[in-house]
This record gives sequence, C-alpha cells and structure tokens, in this order.
Amino acid sequence: MTVRHLAQLTRGQARAAAAGGGIAVLPIGSIEQHADHLPLGTDFLLVDAVLDRALTRLESDSTEWLRLPTLTYGHSPHHLFAAAVTLQPATVAAVLADILASLSATGFRRMIIVNGHGGNDELIRLAVKTHALQQQGSAAACSYWTLTDDSSADQADQEVERVERTPGHAGWFETSLMMAAHPDLVAEDRPYAPADPPPLFDRSPHPTLTVERHGEWSRVGGITDDPNDADAATGTILLKRRVQGMCAALRAFDFTTR
Amino acid sequence: MTVRHLAQLTRGQARAAAAGGGIAVLPIGSIEQHADHLPLGTDFLLVDAVLDRALTRLESDSTEWLRLPTLTYGHSPHHLFAAAVTLQPATVAAVLADILASLSATGFRRMIIVNGHGGNDELIRLAVKTHALQQQGSAAACSYWTLTDDSSADQADQEVERVERTPGHAGWFETSLMMAAHPDLVAEDRPYAPADPPPLFDRSPHPTLTVERHGEWSRVGGITDDPNDADAATGTILLKRRVQGMCAALRAFDFTTR
Amino acid sequence: MTVRHLAQLTRGQARAAAAGGGIAVLPIGSIEQHADHLPLGTDFLLVDAVLDRALTRLESDSTEWLRLPTLTYGHSPHHLFAAAVTLQPATVAAVLADILASLSATGFRRMIIVNGHGGNDELIRLAVKTHALQQQGSAAACSYWTLTDDSSADQADQEVERVERTPGHAGWFETSLMMAAHPDLVAEDRPYAPADPPPLFDRSPHPTLTVERHGEWSRVGGITDDPNDADAATGTILLKRRVQGMCAALRAFDFTTR
Amino acid sequence: MTVRHLAQLTRGQARAAAAGGGIAVLPIGSIEQHADHLPLGTDFLLVDAVLDRALTRLESDSTEWLRLPTLTYGHSPHHLFAAAVTLQPATVAAVLADILASLSATGFRRMIIVNGHGGNDELIRLAVKTHALQQQGSAAACSYWTLTDDSSADQADQEVERVERTPGHAGWFETSLMMAAHPDLVAEDRPYAPADPPPLFDRSPHPTLTVERHGEWSRVGGITDDPNDADAATGTILLKRRVQGMCAALRAFDFTTR
Amino acid sequence: MTVRHLAQLTRGQARAAAAGGGIAVLPIGSIEQHADHLPLGTDFLLVDAVLDRALTRLESDSTEWLRLPTLTYGHSPHHLFAAAVTLQPATVAAVLADILASLSATGFRRMIIVNGHGGNDELIRLAVKTHALQQQGSAAACSYWTLTDDSSADQADQEVERVERTPGHAGWFETSLMMAAHPDLVAEDRPYAPADPPPLFDRSPHPTLTVERHGEWSRVGGITDDPNDADAATGTILLKRRVQGMCAALRAFDFTTR
Amino acid sequence: MTVRHLAQLTRGQARAAAAGGGIAVLPIGSIEQHADHLPLGTDFLLVDAVLDRALTRLESDSTEWLRLPTLTYGHSPHHLFAAAVTLQPATVAAVLADILASLSATGFRRMIIVNGHGGNDELIRLAVKTHALQQQGSAAACSYWTLTDDSSADQADQEVERVERTPGHAGWFETSLMMAAHPDLVAEDRPYAPADPPPLFDRSPHPTLTVERHGEWSRVGGITDDPNDADAATGTILLKRRVQGMCAALRAFDFTTR
Repeated sequence: MTVRHLAQLTRGQARAAAAGGGIAVLPIGSIEQHADHLPLGTDFLLVDAVLDRALTRLESDSTEWLRLPTLTYGHSPHHLFAAAVTLQPATVAAVLADILASLSATGFRRMIIVNGHGGNDELIRLAVKTHALQQQGSAAACSYWTLTDDSSADQADQEVERVERTPGHAGWFETSLMMAAHPDLVAEDRPYAPADPPPLFDRSPHPTLTVERHGEWSRVGGITDDPNDADAATGTILLKRRVQGMCAALRAFDFTTR
Repeated sequence: MTVRHLAQLTRGQARAAAAGGGIAVLPIGSIEQHADHLPLGTDFLLVDAVLDRALTRLESDSTEWLRLPTLTYGHSPHHLFAAAVTLQPATVAAVLADILASLSATGFRRMIIVNGHGGNDELIRLAVKTHALQQQGSAAACSYWTLTDDSSADQADQEVERVERTPGHAGWFETSLMMAAHPDLVAEDRPYAPADPPPLFDRSPHPTLTVERHGEWSRVGGITDDPNDADAATGTILLKRRVQGMCAALRAFDFTTR
Repeated sequence: MTVRHLAQLTRGQARAAAAGGGIAVLPIGSIEQHADHLPLGTDFLLVDAVLDRALTRLESDSTEWLRLPTLTYGHSPHHLFAAAVTLQPATVAAVLADILASLSATGFRRMIIVNGHGGNDELIRLAVKTHALQQQGSAAACSYWTLTDDSSADQADQEVERVERTPGHAGWFETSLMMAAHPDLVAEDRPYAPADPPPLFDRSPHPTLTVERHGEWSRVGGITDDPNDADAATGTILLKRRVQGMCAALRAFDFTTR
Repeated sequence: MTVRHLAQLTRGQARAAAAGGGIAVLPIGSIEQHADHLPLGTDFLLVDAVLDRALTRLESDSTEWLRLPTLTYGHSPHHLFAAAVTLQPATVAAVLADILASLSATGFRRMIIVNGHGGNDELIRLAVKTHALQQQGSAAACSYWTLTDDSSADQADQEVERVERTPGHAGWFETSLMMAAHPDLVAEDRPYAPADPPPLFDRSPHPTLTVERHGEWSRVGGITDDPNDADAATGTILLKRRVQGMCAALRAFDFTTR
Repeated sequence: MTVRHLAQLTRGQARAAAAGGGIAVLPIGSIEQHADHLPLGTDFLLVDAVLDRALTRLESDSTEWLRLPTLTYGHSPHHLFAAAVTLQPATVAAVLADILASLSATGFRRMIIVNGHGGNDELIRLAVKTHALQQQGSAAACSYWTLTDDSSADQADQEVERVERTPGHAGWFETSLMMAAHPDLVAEDRPYAPADPPPLFDRSPHPTLTVERHGEWSRVGGITDDPNDADAATGTILLKRRVQGMCAALRAFDFTTR
Repeated sequence: MTVRHLAQLTRGQARAAAAGGGIAVLPIGSIEQHADHLPLGTDFLLVDAVLDRALTRLESDSTEWLRLPTLTYGHSPHHLFAAAVTLQPATVAAVLADILASLSATGFRRMIIVNGHGGNDELIRLAVKTHALQQQGSAAACSYWTLTDDSSADQADQEVERVERTPGHAGWFETSLMMAAHPDLVAEDRPYAPADPPPLFDRSPHPTLTVERHGEWSRVGGITDDPNDADAATGTILLKRRVQGMCAALRAFDFTTR
C-alpha cells in the first residue's frame, strides 16, 4: 500500500518513507459560515473528500504518499460577520512555514499543500515559494476546485461546468459537492435571496482584477448563488472531475520532481 | 443530544449554541516521535480518546458541548531530532489566540482547551489567561494526563498509579493507553535501552524545578521508561480514570461559570 | 486635469481629492536580476510605463486619479542568487498595510494597487482583502501583464499573444516591452542558453498547480525563454494592449465602487 | 567567595567565571498591585529576599554563582485594572530569550531563572526549553514559592503550611513574608472584604484545571485572602523554608549538570 | 562616469560595481503634510535634490556611486492628523534591514542611507548599526539638513544660518529650499498662525532633551515657523551648503572605508 | 518628600501620585564590556548615580517624582564580541512601549526615560514619540552624558570638558565618573593599546554622519581612549555637571508640561 497517514507511522517508518522519496501531502481547509444549509466545516470536508478519493486511486502507483492530518482552521476573517473560526494571515503563514520546515527536518524532500478554501490560496502559494528558497527539494500547492482533468474521455461530464458560473461560495457548486460527499450534512431548507448587485468577490468587474468592498460578504448574506440549483447528481460529477484533476496534479508533481 | 461537532453545524446553529451558553471544547495534541513502537500522532489520538469518551458521558447533561476539530499540530521542537511536525511557540500562541478570539466573535462566552501533549502545557494556560483579559466570559485549559477522579469508589483502580512513576513519554503510561485505545497502532516489538542517568525532563532533580539539558532527548533515545511494562488492562484503567477526571473537570468548569 | 501625483499635492488638496471620491493608485514593482540584457528595475519601469500611459488616457474622465510614488522594492528573494534588492514577504505585507491604512486615515475610500512583478501577486491581493475588512470603502489589486482588453476591435494585435507562450521572465515578453518603453536600457547582446527541462515556475506540470524547486532559478540562469525572440514592434503592441487593459480595469473599479 | 554580581565583574572576570563552570542566576519579579497594604514591587522584593539569602548560604560551596540584576518588570496585565507596570507575554519571552542567548554568547553553559511572580511561571519554563534546544549546556527555571525543603529536620516549621490554604496573592502568605523581609513596606491598615465566591484563580474548581474569568481580579479586589491573618513570625518560617528550598534547588541543578 | 542608477544596471554590472568597491546610496524621505503651501512629498523631493546635485559633483572622482531608487515612504505617523502616507516604525526598520541585507547579498561592502525626514533619523542609524554587526563592510547614515561644509571659503553663506532658528517643519527652511529646488510646487498663499507656546518638537525646553506632547502637531497646525520668511535666494544658499555638506560626507565615508 | 520609588508604593499611592501630576522616571542602562578595568554594569550604575543625586536635589520642589526600577538590560549587541547581556532592538522597543503604556493605564500623564547607554539612544527617543501619539500627556527622553548645565556660575568646571574629546567608551570619561561614583569597582590596572586608526564610532569622519564598520569594536579592543587619563577629581566634576544638567532637564520637562 502506497498511501499512509503520517500520524500513524512510527518515527522510523516516517523517516524511511521520507528517505525513500515519499511525498508528504498536507490538506488545509477552513471553518466558516456557509449560509444556512451547509456546515461550518464544508471546506475541509470537501478537500478531504477529494484528496482521500484521489489517494485511493494512487495506491497502485509505486510512489509513497504520506497524508498529514488536515489543517481544519484556515484564513476566513471575512466570515466572522456570521460565524467562523479563523486564523490571521500571519498565523496561517507561520503554521505552514513551521510544518514545511518540520517535514524537511524529518527528511522529506517532496511535499504538497492541497487546499479547500479560497481565502487560503495566496497563503499556500507564498508558503511553498518561501520554503523552497530555504530547503532542498520541491514543494507544491494547489486548490482542489480549480483542478479538473479535461483530457478525460467523458465529454458529457465537462458540460456540467460549461455554464457561465463560478464555483462561488455556498451555492450550486459547494452544495452539489456536499450532497454527493456528505448528504447528511446538507439542510433541506436552503433560503436564498439574490443580492443586487451580485457580490464583487464572485464576479470581478474585470478579469484578474481583485476588488474588495467593505461589508460585501455581509451585504450579500454570505452566499454567491442559489443553492437550490444544486443536486447530488451534479455533485457526483463535480466530485469525480476534481478527484481526476487531483490525481493528475499529484502525479504531475511526482513525475516532475523525481 | 448535548454534544455536537461545531464544524458540522450551520452558522445559525453555531450562534444559537453559543448564545445559549454552550461550551466550546478545543482539543490540542502534537505530532512527534514516540520511540519505535508508537505512532507520531499518539498525543492527539489519546486526547481525542479521552475527550470523546468523556463527552459521550456528558450527553445526558443539560449543558451543550461544542467540540471543535482537534489541533493535531502542537509544540514539539524537542522531538525534531528524530521526527516531528511541530509549530514554534509563537505560532501555537497565535493559533490559540486566533481561535479563542473567533469563538468570542461567534458569540461563545465559555470555552476550554483540552491538551494531550506536555510541550503545549504552558502555551494553553497562557492562551486562556490572555484571552480572558480581553473578552467577556470564561476560558479554561487542562491537560488530560493530570486529570483523575480520585473521589471514585474504585480504590483498586487508583493503585495502578500509586507506584513511583511519572506518565513519561512513550513508556508504560502512553503505551498502556494506546494498547487500550488504539491497539492496532502499537508495534509488538518495543526496543528499549535505559539511559543512565535517566532523562532530566522526566525526573527533575528537585520538585517544581524545570531543568533542560541540550541534547537530552536525543541522549535518552526519546523515551523515558520501558514500554514493555505496559499492558492493555492497565491502559484500560488509566483511560477510564482520565475519562472520569475529564468529565469532572468539564462539569466543574460548567458549574463554576454558569 | 483628473490625474495628479499625490506627493505633489498639499494636505488640503489631498484631503479634498479623497473626500471627492478620488481613487488612489499605488504602483509596486521590484528590483531584481533580469538576465544579462535587461536592467534590475525592469518590473517597476514596466508597470510605470503601463500605468502612466493608462492614466493619461483617463484624464478626460470625470474621476480623479491620485497616483502615488511607485514602490520600487518588492518581493524577489528568488533572484538574490544573482542580484536583487528585495523585501521579505512580511515586510511587503507591512508596507502595503501601512500605506493603505494611511490612505484611509487621509480620507480615501477607493484605492488600487497596480503591480509589475509576479512575486508580489499574492501579497497585493492579501493586502487589499485584509484592508477592506477593517476600513470603509473599496480596495483593489491587479498585475499589469494579465490585463488586456480583448474587446478591442484590433484582432491582429491579439494574434501577437496567441502563440503558446507565457510572459515569463526576461524573455520575449519583457524584452519586447522594454524595447518599446525603454530601448536605451536594453543591451544589444542577449546571451541565452535554453534549460532542459524548462523552468518549473514558467511551465507548471499541471494547470493551477504551483511547483517550487530549490535552486530552480539558478539552474535555468534566471531566464525563461530566448530574449532574442523579442522585437520593438511586438513590444509596442504588447504595451498598447496592457495600457488598454489597465484603462479597462481602472474604469471597471471606478464604475463598480461609485 | 563564590557568589558575585555579574554586573560588577569586568568582561574578563565574567568570561573566566563562565568558562570555569559558573552558574548565572537571573531573578525575575513583577510590579503590580498587591492590595492596599503591600507595595507594587512585592514580587521582586520577595524573590530577591529568598535568592540573596540562599546565595549567602551557598558561598561556602565550590561552585561559582553569578547573580544577574533582577528583572523587576514581569507579566502582570491582569493587575492593570488597579496599578501595574507590565510587559506583554511576547515581550517577556523576548527579554528572556535575549538574556539567555547573551549568556551563552558570553560563555555560560549553565543558567537558571528564579521567579517571584505567578504570571511569569509559564514564560520562564518556555524560555529555558527553547533556549536549551539551541544552545549547549543546561538551563533551569523555578518559582520561589513552590520551593521548600521538606527533608528538613524541623517538623514544626512544616506545620505552618499544613493548613488548607494556597500562597494566594496579597494575603496571609505574601504579607507574612513581607513582614519578615521588609516590615517597613507593609502598611498597618489592611482592609479586606471576602469575595463570594472566592476568586477562581486561587481555587480552581478542579485540580490542575486553569479557569480564567473576565474581570475576576477586579471582582475580588485584587486579593485572595485576609492579610490580617499574616504575622512576622509566620513570615520568618515561610522565608526560611523557601531559602532552604532554593538552596536545595540550586544545588540540585548544580550537581545534576556538572 | 562614476555615478549610476542601480536599477538601470544589469545584474552583471551591479555585481561588478559592488565587487569593485562601489558604494550604494539609498535615499529615504516621507510623504506627509507640509502645511498649506508645500507638497506632501517635500521631504523626498529635497533629499533627492541635495543628493543628485552632490552625486553630479562626485562624478569626477574615481569612486563608483550606485544610487538606489528613493524610499519615498517613511515614518510620519505624527502627520496623520492632517494627511500622510506613513509606515510604522517596525515596518521602516524591516524595509531598511531587508534592503541593506540584499545589498550585501549582491556583493556590496559599502552602503549609505541619505535621509530627508526627521522622523526617520533614529531608524536609519539603528539600521546601519544592526546591519554592520551582521555583515562585512561598512554602512553609514546621515540626514541632509544637518550636513553643511563650514570649511567653505564663503563666509557670507554661513551667515544665512547664523540666526537663531532651527530648520523646523514647513517653515522658512524647507520653504526656501523648495523655492530653490521646486518653485512650481510652492503655493503663493502661505497662511500661518503662530502657536503659543511654540511647538515642543521644534524647541526643546532643554538641550538634547526630547519632549513629546500628545496632540502637539495638531495644536500648532503642523508648522513650526512662518513660511513667509522664506525666499528663493536663501533657499539657493541653503541648498548649495547642503550639497557641499553631502559631498563632504560622502567623500569622508568613501575615504574612511577604503 | 517629593521623590519616591514607585515599586515601594501601594496601588492607591501610585494612582494618587499619578492623578496628582506626578512624573514617572524610568532609568535605562546596559550590561556590557567596559574594557578590563570597569564592570559590565557601568552604564546603569552611572545613570543611577546621576539620577539619584539629581532626584535628591529635587526633593524640595513641589512636584512629585516617581522613580521606577532601572532597566539594567539595554541594547548592546556590539559588545557581545567580549561580554554583554543584551536585548535585541525590537525587544527594547517592546519593553519601553509596554512600560510606558502601563504607566498611562495606571494614570500617569507625564513620564521620562533617563538613559545611560549610547546604544539605547535612538530607541528611547522612538519610544516616547510613539507613545505620545497614542496616549494623553507628555513623554520625554534624555541621555545623561549629554546633559550639562552651562549656565552654571562655575566656569572652571566647564573647562574640564573643553578639551577636544568625546565621552567615548570605557576611557577617560566613564572611568573618571566611576572613580567618583563607584571607586571600589574600578580596577587599578587599566591596560590600553591605542588603535590606529581610532574607532569610527567615536570619531565620525564627518559631523552627524554615522559610520558603522563590521568588527570595529573588536578591532579597537572595546575601548575608545586611554582610561589612565582618568582621575577621581575630574570624575567628581563631570558627575556634578551631569547632576546639574539632569536637574535642569527634569525641571524643564516639569515646567513645560504642567
């Protein structure tokens, strides 16, 4: 078996896995409001769902993957208006730096951060850049929702995302995924009132321009689009495509850094 | 049911629980070498084992307990000589401060940190002291291995700990507990070579005096006493007594701060 | 005239411009090696070139634009192997936080960071997110090389970038731009030895996956592609398209946050 | 003479003492309200009183003890409600880290922090743990009020503390000690109004559980028990027992780390 | 030519200049209110005016001078009451430390900070002291307004400053200099109301005593003395004397550290 | 009596003194090598000597002076080459900020830092500037060796310092002062070897230019000039003049901020 939980290994097993070229995988999520129908833990639940399915597929590979416990707490100050358990940016940066440094000290030369929350995206990329300047080996970072495997033979699946919509927050995308991965944690009643204008953080007025307006998350009720557009079948496809994308990304990292 | 996972609640449920006087419980452990026979995650596995058993017993109480995801990463730089995934002291302090502040922002007025690792002990106590200066309500902290319920009717159980020995690290105490809680994660082969003199961090040369010697953990092989002295039956008793102690501590906090 | 240099205004003029809805524009670049033919200041020279041309076009608008002095020093530790004057990530974060806070204190409710260097990208986006949580108004961030105006009537111009190549570093893109904007600062002799494999930071092994390899910038000589592919005519088109994109982005920010 | 003030030595004498195995002793206290009858400096005055008496007894030993100037300022934010001159936790940590690092740089391989204030306890223990990871030699920490020498022949003295009471703050314990050590600084009038319930920080609702309630120090008037229970004779015994305990602790550190 | 802009050099030129003993010159100013008649950028405009004139004079020397881009943002929190773009003290310290460290990494062994703003004075001197402890070579710092060359043959020029007045802020000194260096940026209308008592920061009640009173800058309107006392002829002399002083200081640094 | 030790007051006395306009006085020194004949504590011993004599003279004034315990540890990393117990710059800044903030919280509106060590000079001035921006009242800072009272009738005393020499470090000035204030702590044998060239930190190559050369303190043996030029009679005059200057400065602060 090539996929193991690092925390379940003895020190000797951990060092041997590192010395043998094993890749440490660190998932990070967040705990934050996801409207009235999804749980606070949605982001770490989803990155775990994608990652664990992907790692299962990788078990037949020769590479050793060492999964670390998920960092359930992330960078979500913008959700404190409703409910969140968040770290400050400098805290997240310190946590990531310390963990990556520990992995290097324990002998790992390859490590990847797998992210489930938009608010962490800049921080994970900064973390691996800084780490790789100081330590031997390679470090990588990715966010699960951007990963798909469009080389897939299944064109029909791709159609699901061809519509003009973003993953957003607590709307069709995440609700569909949760209906597929954790149906018991999705409330049946999903109140939604469209905001006008729609939230800036979901639809930038210009491509690649980031615009942040004070009080925006509160103004739109902490949700980007109608969660009643979600369904489990769509969620299953979205999930499958992320798992395929995650597999492809993990393998790409593995192959490139051998 | 009075015990729920905070991450599984919606924002509305979380705020209602907080407003209703619910108590947030934050477990913290560590990931660090535990000799050649116990897994790196021993400390968080054990605090989880004690806490979850204790919370189950508290379900019949009227108080609401909101369990947060375990902070699996703690303060273990002294174990990097072998293998560890550790945060620096200032990082742990920042993580705890941010989480407690988030809980206050989300409406909680009562919160407790439950610890599974000696290296975190000073940090959790500092964290609740600092937090309570700034925010309304009460904050508490405890370390599971020090909690017992000696008012218990069962004198025989107490005898188990009457011998002159400390909980130590990766020795009779933790190994027994792991044999009771996670027998599949305890290796059968448990090599041990006594260090002479015994490790300073286990037996201080004077009561309440903390002595730290450079290289001490490495010198003694990262273990305090013979893990072959451990057995599952002892572990079961040790575990039961910690669960009773944890229940008593949680109830004491609850009653005192109503 | 609607475009002025903030540093050339008196305090009264500055406050009046802020109170009148003026938008503060903060350019940030870097000082770092750009191979053997481009100057260390390439990144700030280019963002200045784009921004100042864009602001000239905006002069006929009714909105007041207040240009701040360029932050010439950015986040370039990966270029220290050859030559750079760089700030650490936490320093850049502090600089941006302090400047944005000062602008709010001086009365500005709209401000935008305009970036010329890839290594700053995460930091500028984090900065505006953090700022907007604490202060009234809106804050935005963008990186010039990603801005184009593809609604342009001029299809031929777009063809220039249709080829399969990234902007990269010190290669065809930046060299072409410098030949258009600062021809006197481009050396005639442009030595180039292709690296095999090509640099990871230029061509990720999987879309949206960030991979950082220790020593990678040094291994590839600090350059991504052949600068001899550059020419001034291409640079003129690339520059024009960025100026158009910058104008569009600035106007989009203005319209959205009125 | 084996006990000298480090600040009174020349650089050569200091380095020679360090090279010869001398032990640096750093006392730390605090400046904070001690009710209406004890001075703000009580904590550093008492640790100095204990330490200097102990060092006098150690003069006949062969070991060299180098006493540093007392850190009179400690961690007392909980006393600001009335009057205090306090450092933040991170400041105390930095001060201790810098001083210990300086001692190592000057050649010391053995050093001990001797504490007079409860609010410093976690910080001094963290400081020596962190220091010993980075520097050769040994570092120790203790708090004077917990040190006693119960192997003493004098059983009667021990009876003084057999009653069910904690050292507390500004009550019978500290007032007795000050009446013995600094009678001129103890006011005759000692107003006291018992708080109901008694302060949490003095009597935890469960052993080893730390509970911190917002506003608790203010609620109980900054005092734990009746200072009118104090007397100089008791203080003399309490002081003698701490001096004996301090001697024992210092000697234990010395013997263990030779 | 011996004076070049570092940002206009290629990496090879920069390293060669450093290796050849070139001196890096870093100007720092500030952006802050200068009453109703001078621009926010006065301080960096003036240090640039002095430095660039001085460097022109040094072109005939054999020493290579490498001018860095001006740090236009400095430490001016005391001017936020009216208008400023300021960094916090720790931010300025970090910026200076990072830049000096980068220069050392790029090969420079000689570097000098040239300052245009009183609020930066302590920070630049601390920065070079700290840097020189860690890195080979020499680092220097000076503030332009204190530099004069009184060995000059021109006694008449010296008379200009013989009157009993300080350089102050936004008064006769800076206004005269701006009338000489940037007449287009000096407003004709220069309102002034004398404060009674005069501002403490301008006239200390005892030599070398620094006294800071809360709200003092606001109380005196952000100005120390009557700007209507200024004239361009005086400014020309003041400027010339600073240029001479700057030349003398730069040469003294050069000669001393060869 | 108008001069009291703050640490000897009860909380009520401290708050009353603050409310009554009392001025808190915080001395700061350092612990660092002073050649082979002066003790490490020279700087705090001398500032204490000057301050305590000055405060005795002020006892007949109506103003209340509250003396705080001396900060014996200062900023002396440049003396670690021989022997020092030093804080980093950021640590000193934090200590001063925390203490000044505590004094404000305790009710003080007037406070002054009195310094005995050159390496602290920038830090104390920054500290009072930063504090006064945030808190009501006034804060001041001075360094004892620069304070003299030249309005004194005694012209002969002034002649002592008319010679062309700086106070320096461990030379004629400090040795003379120590011979007057602490003759028992001055070694009879005072070896001295002149450095050629003399130390840069003592004689800048240009007025107001700070030049720092790596290894300079070590190169010159940690001393600026010949301590054999010192004598007790000179020390007595130097001390008297500093006491007069300190009195004048303290009174000037008092009068100005009433």
